[in-house]
Amino acid sequence: MQKTGGLVFPLAEYEGRIKKLCAAMDARGMDAVILTMPHDLFYLTGYQTPGYYWFQALVVPRESEPFMVTRLLEASNISARTWIKRSRPYHDSDNPPQVLADAIAEFELAGARLGYDRDAYFFRVFEQEALKAALPNARFVNCSGIVEQLRVVKSDAEIAKMEQAARATEAGMRAGVEAVAVGVSENEIAAAIYDAMLRAGSEWPAMAPFVATGWRGALGHATWERRIVERQDYVFLEVAGCYNRYHAAMMRTVTVGDTPKPIADGEKVCLEAMEATMAAIRPGVPASRIDEIARRVIAQGAPDSHQASRTGYSIGIGFPPDWGEGHILSMVRGHDRPLERNMTFHLIPWV
Amino acid sequence: MQKTGGLVFPLAEYEGRIKKLCAAMDARGMDAVILTMPHDLFYLTGYQTPGYYWFQALVVPRESEPFMVTRLLEASNISARTWIKRSRPYHDSDNPPQVLADAIAEFELAGARLGYDRDAYFFRVFEQEALKAALPNARFVNCSGIVEQLRVVKSDAEIAKMEQAARATEAGMRAGVEAVAVGVSENEIAAAIYDAMLRAGSEWPAMAPFVATGWRGALGHATWERRIVERQDYVFLEVAGCYNRYHAAMMRTVTVGDTPKPIADGEKVCLEAMEATMAAIRPGVPASRIDEIARRVIAQGAPDSHQASRTGYSIGIGFPPDWGEGHILSMVRGHDRPLERNMTFHLIPWV
Repeated sequence: MQKTGGLVFPLAEYEGRIKKLCAAMDARGMDAVILTMPHDLFYLTGYQTPGYYWFQALVVPRESEPFMVTRLLEASNISARTWIKRSRPYHDSDNPPQVLADAIAEFELAGARLGYDRDAYFFRVFEQEALKAALPNARFVNCSGIVEQLRVVKSDAEIAKMEQAARATEAGMRAGVEAVAVGVSENEIAAAIYDAMLRAGSEWPAMAPFVATGWRGALGHATWERRIVERQDYVFLEVAGCYNRYHAAMMRTVTVGDTPKPIADGEKVCLEAMEATMAAIRPGVPASRIDEIARRVIAQGAPDSHQASRTGYSIGIGFPPDWGEGHILSMVRGHDRPLERNMTFHLIPWV
Repeated sequence: MQKTGGLVFPLAEYEGRIKKLCAAMDARGMDAVILTMPHDLFYLTGYQTPGYYWFQALVVPRESEPFMVTRLLEASNISARTWIKRSRPYHDSDNPPQVLADAIAEFELAGARLGYDRDAYFFRVFEQEALKAALPNARFVNCSGIVEQLRVVKSDAEIAKMEQAARATEAGMRAGVEAVAVGVSENEIAAAIYDAMLRAGSEWPAMAPFVATGWRGALGHATWERRIVERQDYVFLEVAGCYNRYHAAMMRTVTVGDTPKPIADGEKVCLEAMEATMAAIRPGVPASRIDEIARRVIAQGAPDSHQASRTGYSIGIGFPPDWGEGHILSMVRGHDRPLERNMTFHLIPWV
């Protein structure tokens, strides 16, 4: 196992996931599903590469062995890191949707009811159309979310990975906080975060840590860009370490010098909102309810402020451009799925 | 300017880009184009955020002011970092394609010929369909590549940014090479690369540096994952620093201890292939021809080996998941566009 990379989880964990996927396929009347998002491929097979800007697909048939179509350069990641036995790689000058269609025909699914993910970033409309044109006898049906709805509830083994990620997150955040001082650059703070986070075992996170000082803290999702910390700045830090592709995130603001009263007041309200959300989180409560609770605390404590975005979002397996799973489940108006045991969230009530 | 982030380039640079885009729109018979890829938005306006996993669009009309639709949280990046004056942000619980359709109608384009990018990862099929349904009187035509074909030839100002990125790349690679030693972990090597690269001014690169030691070097696109370097390992390193979102990449292999003869022979062939490609690169030569030249050198010098992927690819503005522009122009069979002055490539002939 060690020599080939091996699987992240015992084989039984993957078997359980495939079994749940097959039950979902049954419920939706599908003979097979075609999946292209790196998160879903990793979840079901262990496959990982940053190279998913080239086409990749995992096909899971209801009644036969799964197979993959990837760039030839990535085929090593199938043999070394997954339990998948059937692979049909393509060359850089090939037409990937045609290679996928040929594989689907080879494995006797050309006339099947095929689920495909219409919400996937990495299955573009021209690729979908080429595949459909090459398989005129197949019936294509949308399978959006079929794996993601499973991914949102973690197993105990997944929670253990997230705890390892959290150790690296803590190390990175601590180093980042300690690096903040007048005259230090954002780049130096980011270097300190990476150093501690990577030495604490982190892999490459799906998003870079956010480091924004002074006026740059008011920019959405800003990160280090060479600015030098000045007296009375405050510094926004958000860090997620990664372990076996699972992420755990943390957001903090550091003040340089004395904390101005408006910032101290804002901090107090944020902490109250955080405590109120933590107290409310339990199985059966709709995710949107947590957002309502945070907004009420913030509206009462900081009537001149507002929370421009959601209160929290699901987090787990991450590949760029996002470390979160907020599109599956967020604490925001409209996301009414009840919370369950072993769901995992990044909580960010803020003013 | 300093206080608000400001533009990366002088306004005239952006005006020139918009002018070229309008000429391309004329040639394709479009009244406006709808763009969603972060690279295109940055190129035309200066807009940047890692938050493009939420819907974002820039609309450039032929005859009126451009406008943007982004998540409210990101609107600060429009006012602070672009020359765009018109913005229609949406809340996290809104329906973004509907907000875009409303803006298109507000700015009197509901009956226009609208170019939209069918190849964009971040304009998903369900979003495209929702937009079309909301604008029944518009005529939608594919505008894939309309900005990318401009981006592939850099201005002198862009080349200067890439040179600054290259300084950070060199610093990171040098530190990575120096960190390699028996007993050191992949994570420690990666930490050394980040430390030097960030202190040399690099922003967050669109891909993490690749660090793969020993048997892990045979995996496609593998990067650090805690393995400890052993005697006689060889270590694969690939690094791209980033400056104002422009990237310059470098790939190297380090041997630990004595270099085994097969590796030394392979190195010799790679260097010969690199020299042959460098000598052949000049305006007017088709990109595919450079790939042919590299493959011929490798076939002669290392007949038992093969080059599993392309010989090089265009590189410039980068946002995850890719630091390259290989889909626009690669040195590979089928990419026959002649090279031009101020094109920029990451050259990777290998065995």
